[in-house]
Amino acid sequence: MTPTGHALETALAYHRAWSGHDLDAAMALVAPDIVCDAPAGPVEGIDAFRAFMGPFAAMTLRTEILGAFGDDETAVVLYDTTTTLVAHAPGAERLRVVDGLIVRMTIVFDRLPFARARAAS
Amino acid sequence: MTPTGHALETALAYHRAWSGHDLDAAMALVAPDIVCDAPAGPVEGIDAFRAFMGPFAAMTLRTEILGAFGDDETAVVLYDTTTTLVAHAPGAERLRVVDGLIVRMTIVFDRLPFARARAAS
Repeated sequence: MTPTGHALETALAYHRAWSGHDLDAAMALVAPDIVCDAPAGPVEGIDAFRAFMGPFAAMTLRTEILGAFGDDETAVVLYDTTTTLVAHAPGAERLRVVDGLIVRMTIVFDRLPFARARAAS
Repeated sequence: MTPTGHALETALAYHRAWSGHDLDAAMALVAPDIVCDAPAGPVEGIDAFRAFMGPFAAMTLRTEILGAFGDDETAVVLYDTTTTLVAHAPGAERLRVVDGLIVRMTIVFDRLPFARARAAS
């Protein structure tokens, strides 16, 4: 895991912020017109993005970065999380960064254990 | 997307092979004792890994790499796929490579649309 490039710095700062439950600090790294390709579909604009990430950040107990790389424009981060609903919930992101702000994000995670946990509760 | 490092070369060759439906070529890049952390749980050994990846590869119509980086030991690849079951099914992998063979892999993908598609058919 060799951090290289400005996009990765932003991606890791964003990760530290949301996983540390500092949503304001996380959103300070997000462009107002972010387009996020999330598992359930596109999330457009920082308000919708905050509404999408907030609940997940709130239920996240810990994260561990398993791989993180990038160059000046793009970063990819793959991490594990422990959440209040699901004990082992890895996720991955590909982020595009312009002038220190995340303008585009693709998020991959497995919604199935969350759907099962919600159905069981 | 700047390919750097030997792990990424192996990761991309593996990706090209399975997405091109050449499972033999893909498995030639996998260590016999691979440990794969897959969405449904650990998959251990190349036989179990081939049985896990084969059906997914067979249903994959196309893939597009959205981000791929690595160093000498580790690579992270995030990609979109179009499959016969689900039209837009992104996935991500973190791969550890030793002597040109993938010894460890963490795969992230969203099983929910696949579960829904199977339930509907």
